[in-house]
Amino acid sequence: MWKVDLNCDMGEAFGTYKIAPDEKIMPLITSANIACGWHAGDPHVMRRTVELALEHGVAIGAHPGHPDLLGFGRRQLGLTPAELKDYVIYQIGALAAFVRAAGGRLNHVKAHGAMYNQAAADAGLARAFAEAVAAFDDSLIVVGLANSHLLSEAKKLGLAVASEVFADRGYLPSGALMPRHLPGAVLHDPQVVAARVLQMVKEGRVEASDGSIIELQADTICVHGDTPEALEHLVALRQTLTDAQIEVASMSR
Amino acid sequence: MWKVDLNCDMGEAFGTYKIAPDEKIMPLITSANIACGWHAGDPHVMRRTVELALEHGVAIGAHPGHPDLLGFGRRQLGLTPAELKDYVIYQIGALAAFVRAAGGRLNHVKAHGAMYNQAAADAGLARAFAEAVAAFDDSLIVVGLANSHLLSEAKKLGLAVASEVFADRGYLPSGALMPRHLPGAVLHDPQVVAARVLQMVKEGRVEASDGSIIELQADTICVHGDTPEALEHLVALRQTLTDAQIEVASMSR
Amino acid sequence: MWKVDLNCDMGEAFGTYKIAPDEKIMPLITSANIACGWHAGDPHVMRRTVELALEHGVAIGAHPGHPDLLGFGRRQLGLTPAELKDYVIYQIGALAAFVRAAGGRLNHVKAHGAMYNQAAADAGLARAFAEAVAAFDDSLIVVGLANSHLLSEAKKLGLAVASEVFADRGYLPSGALMPRHLPGAVLHDPQVVAARVLQMVKEGRVEASDGSIIELQADTICVHGDTPEALEHLVALRQTLTDAQIEVASMSR
Amino acid sequence: MWKVDLNCDMGEAFGTYKIAPDEKIMPLITSANIACGWHAGDPHVMRRTVELALEHGVAIGAHPGHPDLLGFGRRQLGLTPAELKDYVIYQIGALAAFVRAAGGRLNHVKAHGAMYNQAAADAGLARAFAEAVAAFDDSLIVVGLANSHLLSEAKKLGLAVASEVFADRGYLPSGALMPRHLPGAVLHDPQVVAARVLQMVKEGRVEASDGSIIELQADTICVHGDTPEALEHLVALRQTLTDAQIEVASMSR
Repeated sequence: MWKVDLNCDMGEAFGTYKIAPDEKIMPLITSANIACGWHAGDPHVMRRTVELALEHGVAIGAHPGHPDLLGFGRRQLGLTPAELKDYVIYQIGALAAFVRAAGGRLNHVKAHGAMYNQAAADAGLARAFAEAVAAFDDSLIVVGLANSHLLSEAKKLGLAVASEVFADRGYLPSGALMPRHLPGAVLHDPQVVAARVLQMVKEGRVEASDGSIIELQADTICVHGDTPEALEHLVALRQTLTDAQIEVASMSR
Repeated sequence: MWKVDLNCDMGEAFGTYKIAPDEKIMPLITSANIACGWHAGDPHVMRRTVELALEHGVAIGAHPGHPDLLGFGRRQLGLTPAELKDYVIYQIGALAAFVRAAGGRLNHVKAHGAMYNQAAADAGLARAFAEAVAAFDDSLIVVGLANSHLLSEAKKLGLAVASEVFADRGYLPSGALMPRHLPGAVLHDPQVVAARVLQMVKEGRVEASDGSIIELQADTICVHGDTPEALEHLVALRQTLTDAQIEVASMSR
Repeated sequence: MWKVDLNCDMGEAFGTYKIAPDEKIMPLITSANIACGWHAGDPHVMRRTVELALEHGVAIGAHPGHPDLLGFGRRQLGLTPAELKDYVIYQIGALAAFVRAAGGRLNHVKAHGAMYNQAAADAGLARAFAEAVAAFDDSLIVVGLANSHLLSEAKKLGLAVASEVFADRGYLPSGALMPRHLPGAVLHDPQVVAARVLQMVKEGRVEASDGSIIELQADTICVHGDTPEALEHLVALRQTLTDAQIEVASMSR
Repeated sequence: MWKVDLNCDMGEAFGTYKIAPDEKIMPLITSANIACGWHAGDPHVMRRTVELALEHGVAIGAHPGHPDLLGFGRRQLGLTPAELKDYVIYQIGALAAFVRAAGGRLNHVKAHGAMYNQAAADAGLARAFAEAVAAFDDSLIVVGLANSHLLSEAKKLGLAVASEVFADRGYLPSGALMPRHLPGAVLHDPQVVAARVLQMVKEGRVEASDGSIIELQADTICVHGDTPEALEHLVALRQTLTDAQIEVASMSR
């Protein structure tokens, strides 16, 4: 029997600015990565999103990002490992406070955008990210790109990890995601997406941009909530998984 | 036997900016109110200040403030109670994460600057502040201006409170601090300051700006670390208290 | 022959966050108040909005606000007049740079949200706001609430002013806008709105919340772009004005 | 007859935070690069620093940086050329407003920290930076690292440029500054510094870290104001230049 988690970045509104229909997405996912006020989110949004996740029985993760609201955390920032570590502890703590106030439990931590990519590709930053999680609560699950430095560094510290795959993104032969400006970086055909997801979950492999095969473990699938088609894609994805008798459930240790 | 706590705002540096000699002040106080990155402080400074407090056995408090680094949290901001509550939970959580990572224990919460004054004077904001503390951890001590709305609202929620007095500040007959631009608002004569402190701690009273007597309880005395004379004032204050056989120790429930 | 200007706050997106359909609104207005990056807007949005205004022959104004992106500039902030003045010079300069780079001309300055209200109600802040405009360019038009301190202080400095009215907002007998939480603060009936606008422009008067009559001059009408009905209201308003043979044109000295 | 400019980063205080004794440094330099509120500086500091420069007849430059107050603009940020261009226009405009309000004239533009290094090393960013200056005012002088992409791109646009050298920094054979963590990156011996400066100004060359010789033009020398020895180094440097009959004067077209 196969099992996989569906995670989505949530709580990315800020002040008067809305960005995604979180209320509609929450019932369809099993894990919510909730922004912590740095690249997106604010205290009010964090509280509301935590409450929304708890209402729907969705597992809650902290979703720290770079201090770059203007760039939505998507731009590389030249942080030292020590800086990254402190930034992550701060953001996990802030989100965890709302989880605690709402009577919930924090389940995982996943970095956002450029922080995610930098912690995947750079062993020093990966180590710092994992240390931050361990320093705060070593029972938390670290979510990271399949085959990334982040997963291996987190494992070295004895942390539980979840290997993440992307349903609608192309992969480079290295296992990194294709940069968004390249053709094929974002997949739009639902049948192609469905076929890739099944292959990733059941066989642990996917075809890269050059036709080569990448081995990867699919503990959790990242879905996006800020595109117009997000909801229908999500519904289709769940159907695909159900039809293939793959259980959709939150990550657990 | 009398007892009093000496608290000081700490960790108010930001990035490359320094502001006070925290390393020299920490050994002289019993409670540190550590800024949480909104009106001052940053994750690196927070971690270092928490570690410094633990090294010296100083009790740690979260010191939330307005989102106004440019004004150092000293400017009134028109927050709703709901906004204030979420802002305080966020900041307590962020600071608590560093305390947890360092193996320490959070002891109290004290608002900074304009947030302190607004939560003292406005019952609705006071209630929201107290609710934030209770939602995060109802074993924390709420520090507030003697006789303020904050103390009464916190007590209503069953929280432990500490009534704070100011050694070197003049009081209005209402019990509020004199605005800094008025003559007599800041006291400079060490002997005057010492006499007032003793009267506040031992007799629970102090003379207001119009000569009237204010009754107040002195659980903790606020000292300032960002003036040139801070260290010598602090040394003198401790001597005054010791000579008067007043124990200087952290707040406890 | 009557004449009036239609102004709208524009360029209030920020980073990845969108907020109003500026492209659709711009063709319908005669003056654009462009956010300057403090309460809303960012350099990219500012450049695009300036270009959009120039494409449509819409007069450009700087729209400074409080340093409070989280509150969208709508919260009172306890600024000194000196602080306000410097904040306004900064923001006018930043916006003016994009106007200059695009080959346009800055026409007016209008404060946003809480800064608008504070500069209307407080003579000292009004004076500081007017001084900022005069210091940067004394040929700019100051837009302010009809009968406000801002208009009188700006006139004292010899600046051209435009008296602003609100088509869809109720007025207190004092001439201030009704706070949004009061019933009748926002008017929804298009016929009521149309009738009030005509009375304001042609007769210089409007009925206040208590039935009394306020005298006010209507040089420019503020319309809002961030509500779902904004576009249809704007089309209806233009029709009403045209039918009544009132010219709709930008403010000029 | 030789001539050189002495420039220093000024106005890097922020809110309540002080950082360098600008009042003492200003009389000793000929050009001030004034922070624009992004990596450092705020509207009040900008106004005061502009006024201080004008009092001392020091030429004024805008000193834009990354939106990274927490990192003081010293961390690489993954900006696109289009983002960089808009950020620079914004910041020049903001600073220029204070210069205009004070009756002065803006003379040059120099990027700060990581923006400086990125615009030196990347032709696309260099082009964007130069375009920003040209779009705002093509009579401004662009200050950039000797032999950098910034100088060549600015020249292509017909802008006046000033080639900058560093008195107390080691150079890599490529002409880039040695990263600060390498031994020899920062020079402390006043005699070594003096000898290098004279060689750079008079001979247009300096010895790199590997002993090779770099050819560079020294139109302006960067001095630092935020180190304890800044003032004495500056006095010594002026003496060295005067003794060598090198005129110290502001840059001009």
